[in-house]
Amino acid sequence: MLNKIDHIGIAVRSIEEKIPLYRDVLGLEFVGEESVESQGVRVAFFKLGESMIELLEPLNETGPIAKFLERNGEGIHHLAAGCDDIDAARDAAARGELRLLSDKPLDGAHGKLISFVHPKDTGGVLLEFTQRNDH
Amino acid sequence: MLNKIDHIGIAVRSIEEKIPLYRDVLGLEFVGEESVESQGVRVAFFKLGESMIELLEPLNETGPIAKFLERNGEGIHHLAAGCDDIDAARDAAARGELRLLSDKPLDGAHGKLISFVHPKDTGGVLLEFTQRNDH
Repeated sequence: MLNKIDHIGIAVRSIEEKIPLYRDVLGLEFVGEESVESQGVRVAFFKLGESMIELLEPLNETGPIAKFLERNGEGIHHLAAGCDDIDAARDAAARGELRLLSDKPLDGAHGKLISFVHPKDTGGVLLEFTQRNDH
Repeated sequence: MLNKIDHIGIAVRSIEEKIPLYRDVLGLEFVGEESVESQGVRVAFFKLGESMIELLEPLNETGPIAKFLERNGEGIHHLAAGCDDIDAARDAAARGELRLLSDKPLDGAHGKLISFVHPKDTGGVLLEFTQRNDH
């Protein structure tokens, strides 16, 4: 059902400031940046094996990443698992009594479909299911 | 230099309590458990693509995972990147002015060599380099 770590989301105050760390010091391939207005964030991706490191910078002061930074400071924000069929993943989660944060899959960066599971149901881990268009 | 996400470390109060979530609800393959006395933790691994989910349960009240749980509660603790040559990874980190938490690589679970980077130098991300024996 879940086939890989699609990405690890990391909340940062400034993507620009962190590019040298991930690209130049750690040597990861910088894939690109885009804004996801629906989530109030700008994201940047770096390739690491079959996964990505996703940096998340708030576009405003009211979105979830701005709130996370205010509460926790910078750091790992979520774990995204890739799946071939996000509806099947959502059904399995619901059968396991995991609450989903949206009634249906949402549009994520790169044209993906995404759904989040309530972190209270996973021991504090904000878990995202990700279905890529190319699947 | 870094070739994949080797694993994501997740701090939990009880591995036993979380096995049903990762194995039965999320459908991940349960690989096994072991104690790492040097770190004061018991660990359990679940396979997810080329990576693992590593659950970390404290063996005592003074180790780093016990302290993390006390401060933050359960949740994602660290991000481990696989590398072929941990000394090269450590050298690159040092050249980038990232502080390493040990003078040399330490023994981790599964006979791996591991080194941690100071989270103050990576925007709050506790980054581990992992070199597996089979590399």
